[in-house]
Amino acid sequence: MVGRKANAWAARDATGHLSPYSFHLRDTGIEDVVLRVMYCGIDHTDLHQIRGELTSNTKYPLVPGHEVVGEVVELGSEVKKFRVGDIVGVGGIVGSCGECSLCNSNLDQYCSHRILPYNAVYKDGTPTHGGFSSNMVVHQRFAVKIPEKLAPEQAAPLLCAGVTAYSPLKQWMGCNENVKGGIMGLGGVGHLGVKIAKAMGHHVTVISSSDKKRKEAMEDLNADAFLVSTDKDEMRTAANSLDYILDTIPVFHSLQSYLSLLKTQGKLILVGAPQQPLHIQAGDMILGKKTITGSFIGSMEEVQELLDFWAGKGMTTMIELVKMSYVNNAFERMEKNDVRYRFVLDVASSNLE
Amino acid sequence: MVGRKANAWAARDATGHLSPYSFHLRDTGIEDVVLRVMYCGIDHTDLHQIRGELTSNTKYPLVPGHEVVGEVVELGSEVKKFRVGDIVGVGGIVGSCGECSLCNSNLDQYCSHRILPYNAVYKDGTPTHGGFSSNMVVHQRFAVKIPEKLAPEQAAPLLCAGVTAYSPLKQWMGCNENVKGGIMGLGGVGHLGVKIAKAMGHHVTVISSSDKKRKEAMEDLNADAFLVSTDKDEMRTAANSLDYILDTIPVFHSLQSYLSLLKTQGKLILVGAPQQPLHIQAGDMILGKKTITGSFIGSMEEVQELLDFWAGKGMTTMIELVKMSYVNNAFERMEKNDVRYRFVLDVASSNLE
Repeated sequence: MVGRKANAWAARDATGHLSPYSFHLRDTGIEDVVLRVMYCGIDHTDLHQIRGELTSNTKYPLVPGHEVVGEVVELGSEVKKFRVGDIVGVGGIVGSCGECSLCNSNLDQYCSHRILPYNAVYKDGTPTHGGFSSNMVVHQRFAVKIPEKLAPEQAAPLLCAGVTAYSPLKQWMGCNENVKGGIMGLGGVGHLGVKIAKAMGHHVTVISSSDKKRKEAMEDLNADAFLVSTDKDEMRTAANSLDYILDTIPVFHSLQSYLSLLKTQGKLILVGAPQQPLHIQAGDMILGKKTITGSFIGSMEEVQELLDFWAGKGMTTMIELVKMSYVNNAFERMEKNDVRYRFVLDVASSNLE
Repeated sequence: MVGRKANAWAARDATGHLSPYSFHLRDTGIEDVVLRVMYCGIDHTDLHQIRGELTSNTKYPLVPGHEVVGEVVELGSEVKKFRVGDIVGVGGIVGSCGECSLCNSNLDQYCSHRILPYNAVYKDGTPTHGGFSSNMVVHQRFAVKIPEKLAPEQAAPLLCAGVTAYSPLKQWMGCNENVKGGIMGLGGVGHLGVKIAKAMGHHVTVISSSDKKRKEAMEDLNADAFLVSTDKDEMRTAANSLDYILDTIPVFHSLQSYLSLLKTQGKLILVGAPQQPLHIQAGDMILGKKTITGSFIGSMEEVQELLDFWAGKGMTTMIELVKMSYVNNAFERMEKNDVRYRFVLDVASSNLE
């Protein structure tokens, strides 16, 4: 099976400006599925990648997109998991070694040979291309089934942002009505974090540096409380009150005042990665038996679990659906936090040429 | 029951110099036991406390000592746990509220009303005094039974240093032959950490900034490997190899290179508390699913567990037994790391007057 032609939008250089680009998909392997891409989410990783800010050797033309929803249009001969016509999702990784202890214990995303959906090289030596494209080819292991009850555009942000919040919350906390959590940052990951934590039964406090987002946090996202981190009185009152904080903020911030919000044995879960080192006071960690932990997206099993959980509870993501011709504007607005809460590209109905 | 007179050695001011001092024990409460102190360990907390370096309002005269082994000589009317003649131990705390969720789940040492063995105030308003003293009075809840098989002077360092290593190793790792651990720092806590980890079946690497301690680590402490943290080649070879690191170093050190030694999902356990903040790189924590956690001594239940574990395995602590008249020299030498690995005062056979 020879790879078909795909029409995509790509960045050509570190300006990050996207424009039409066509390329040939890799040959369809026996365990591959070929998708007609329907929708694709946009996030900050895409922004950093198109500008060459994440790796020293960014490969252009670069077709971003790692929250991809599409319809299966072709199957490799050994694909048992899907049928033509299925709606499937592809997230933060598209390959791993498949043999190490991590791959064998549902931790594929931490495999040292994981393959990213773009700006990477597939096993056969061909460059990987993301979901800003008419078509995509992916190994069946790295695709999940979108539940029928879930609108496909609604599923897109769950594939990366959603599972980034879901995986650590499930592993460290689980569904538990006695848990009190805090969410720092109300972007793509943060807003889904609030929804997931609420759906798990937690009491959820949104923690923000200003009062600006109080209304949306309380009314739109149904948070239980809102805490302004720059208000010393509020912070003092909230000390020792939280079982965990999900920290989604990708820029430098001192962790010390946030750690004081945690109860004894409380957990601070890092999912946003600032470039500069974070500072912690060992004495407070010790006397409070506190834990800081990091978490990277989620396993394929957890992505599927989240989609089923989401569909089962009839939950919604909050997205702004745009055409590919708007993609450069979308990146600009996202950089200014001018989106509630995730841009999703309507790839299938866009003119890609 | 009126408190009896005790002969002790106390610091009188922030020079930290100790000299004879006598005082009256608090009245023996119905749940108190009175001890004739036999042995008492010496550690860095004692050093910082006698110099007034840990709290802003150090109360002098200060009688240090929080690894106390003694014989029960008197019992309050409601004491069921001990008999006169029992050999018991007292460690890092001598009181807590007894009512909060922490006290009710074997986490007494984290109770916000915990009472330290000295430089603190007991519930009745009297100052607490540590084990550098002929006698000590303590609530039965905060004393443990020294197993008969264990020589009392051998037990002393287990009561604080030992349980400081035991508690997190048990909670995070347990007895497991497949676990590979690292111990940073070979002081009082570190040397017991190596022994405890080995007794739990772990493969143990001692991590040190120079090669000086290789022989003692490998031969005296029976470690499985020795790693020089300033040797970049050795560090590179050891990357991603450890399930945990027990970090006992109480002075500033960058955590970054140590975190690289951890496998995916590895844990760095902080038990030493430098004054300056430690630095961590969130990206490495996230991509490696790594955890940093703090731990403070151990619960009374864990202290008892460790003593029984230690006695059951016929293990030994490595101590230098000295008389009270040597105590000021002992502090001086400890500050220069000139002790292998713990000074223990032979209180009972010292002239305290």
